[in-house]
Amino acid sequence: MFKKLIGASLALVLGASASTAFAAKTYTLRLAETWPPNFPIFGDTTKNLAKLVKEMSDGRLRIKIDSKNKHKAPLGIFDMVRAGQYDMGHSASYYWKGKDPNTLYFTTMPFGMAAPEQYAWFYYGGGMDLMKKVYDKYGVLSFPGGNTGNQMGGWFRKEIKSLDDLKGLKMRIPGFAGEVLAKLGAKPTNIPAGELYTALERNTIDALEWVGPSLDLRMGFHKIAPYYYTGWHEPATELQFLVNKKKFDKLPKDLQSILVTAMKAVSYDMYAQSYHESAVNWEKIKTEYPNIKIRTFPKEVLNAMYKANEDLLAQRAAKDPLAKEIIDSQKVYLRKVRAWTNISDKAYLNSVGDKME
Amino acid sequence: MFKKLIGASLALVLGASASTAFAAKTYTLRLAETWPPNFPIFGDTTKNLAKLVKEMSDGRLRIKIDSKNKHKAPLGIFDMVRAGQYDMGHSASYYWKGKDPNTLYFTTMPFGMAAPEQYAWFYYGGGMDLMKKVYDKYGVLSFPGGNTGNQMGGWFRKEIKSLDDLKGLKMRIPGFAGEVLAKLGAKPTNIPAGELYTALERNTIDALEWVGPSLDLRMGFHKIAPYYYTGWHEPATELQFLVNKKKFDKLPKDLQSILVTAMKAVSYDMYAQSYHESAVNWEKIKTEYPNIKIRTFPKEVLNAMYKANEDLLAQRAAKDPLAKEIIDSQKVYLRKVRAWTNISDKAYLNSVGDKME
Repeated sequence: MFKKLIGASLALVLGASASTAFAAKTYTLRLAETWPPNFPIFGDTTKNLAKLVKEMSDGRLRIKIDSKNKHKAPLGIFDMVRAGQYDMGHSASYYWKGKDPNTLYFTTMPFGMAAPEQYAWFYYGGGMDLMKKVYDKYGVLSFPGGNTGNQMGGWFRKEIKSLDDLKGLKMRIPGFAGEVLAKLGAKPTNIPAGELYTALERNTIDALEWVGPSLDLRMGFHKIAPYYYTGWHEPATELQFLVNKKKFDKLPKDLQSILVTAMKAVSYDMYAQSYHESAVNWEKIKTEYPNIKIRTFPKEVLNAMYKANEDLLAQRAAKDPLAKEIIDSQKVYLRKVRAWTNISDKAYLNSVGDKME
Repeated sequence: MFKKLIGASLALVLGASASTAFAAKTYTLRLAETWPPNFPIFGDTTKNLAKLVKEMSDGRLRIKIDSKNKHKAPLGIFDMVRAGQYDMGHSASYYWKGKDPNTLYFTTMPFGMAAPEQYAWFYYGGGMDLMKKVYDKYGVLSFPGGNTGNQMGGWFRKEIKSLDDLKGLKMRIPGFAGEVLAKLGAKPTNIPAGELYTALERNTIDALEWVGPSLDLRMGFHKIAPYYYTGWHEPATELQFLVNKKKFDKLPKDLQSILVTAMKAVSYDMYAQSYHESAVNWEKIKTEYPNIKIRTFPKEVLNAMYKANEDLLAQRAAKDPLAKEIIDSQKVYLRKVRAWTNISDKAYLNSVGDKME
């Protein structure tokens, strides 16, 4: 009788544990994202992450997403994850350059690597180790969080024909690229997303950069600024997943692996999704607004931007050995990887380009 | 007493099941790969897959890899997975065009999409659905299996200056690209990897294409054929994971999700690894063999190749409605996505290119 009963209970438990739904300890990670609820592409990425880890862990690992409307601190993600107020974040590393200047280098850099080049650097060229060096001291793990692809140089009401046209130009362009333009006499500003259209329409600003067709179409800038410039300042904007290290260390090894793999898969996926959405939306803009003019900044302007960018980087490298290490790593890698891009994708796109027209 | 004993046994079982190591059913998938043991990059991809699924499943899902030396049928992977002789395969879809001509389109196409464009097509532009349509009838699931990046046009002993130089040219170039060249009077052949160097050295062939610097360096072709042509025929070679559907359906849902996510992560990773290895190896070739000359086929030659390629595709589309559906999907998508590439990555690479030199 003992045996029979114990046998039955064992069978019951074994049957249930095979699905791992029963008795397995569950973990919930609270994630704060910089974006508003249901933000396209960026917001899909966190939802995809939550779905994947739930499926792969059979419900043992859950991610609860709080958007900007909930936590009210879109640019406080790093601090909240560091403090353990949230377990995870989805944001962008360059937002924290005011807290630690060396977080700047892990999103994208003016005149820097394109997305496939940058993924090669992150995962095979030493980028992840350098990012770890920067974030370790905060007890925070940082991972690539999805790429927007090459960002456009922005929407301009008037054409930029020479360096003189940059003097006094009021442009919404935040961050390091804004510093570069300021050195050339432009007046960079930051303006919240919701006020951008009106600012451009009312000439509060003369130009602005946002992302690219994937996210620009819904903003409507093409209706009031006919010059759409090709990019120079954010060739491969990579978002970021942050994870509180103490919280991560408490997860069983299998759930750690599930989380890390899911973050990687959804980040790469975001690059593909951004590429797709840009293709679809650029076709819409072109068709509905045939007067939009694609322009590339004149050589004189690009050369001056490049020099200003190099000067700013040299200043940073001179002040901080870790900054120097990262800047040098990116520079050496870019030279090597771009030589390959030049004879592969670039040569291909240039030599077969006319076949598509 | 009943209660006590049962309670104790329950506690024991519950404690163990929390780690899922005890009582959970384990599954082993046997995978056959086209490559020899320890083949660089391609072979890393299957090893990475096995490691990831083992970690994420806490050992409940294992993949046992058999390389070419074991199963002796590098080009029989599709048949073996279809027949259930193996549960999985790692190979390339275009190898099966003799079995089903519509498997051709899911690796890469001459004058087709670059890797980021093709990933966008696979995952967001309808590519996965079309691949499913082709493979469903065989009871086989097909997934992207890792990208080599843009493949070089090959190593040539003599420069190709005009269409006339293709007439009678003996070139190792298998598959659909070989058909294209045959239409222009070349003599395409296939020669096993191990005999390629000698064939080129002894003038059995005048030229050959292999992959790109990532895998070409170890073959030594640069020592005997100084002209390295930029690519046209395989702009984004995507390998393939095959899974026997019956076997897949028997896996619990969480292990299915783990397998699919791991395949996706390691495939994207292979693209980054290929990019990295190409960059590193191209630098080596350039440094050690400064007389290697990068060439792009003349416009006349590229135009003729493009026309021959279009003619062959039109023939295939006329014969088979599913072929037409796939060819049309790729054509429409390429036009849309390339318009975006042209104003993003291509414009960027062209406008900032001189800054790197």
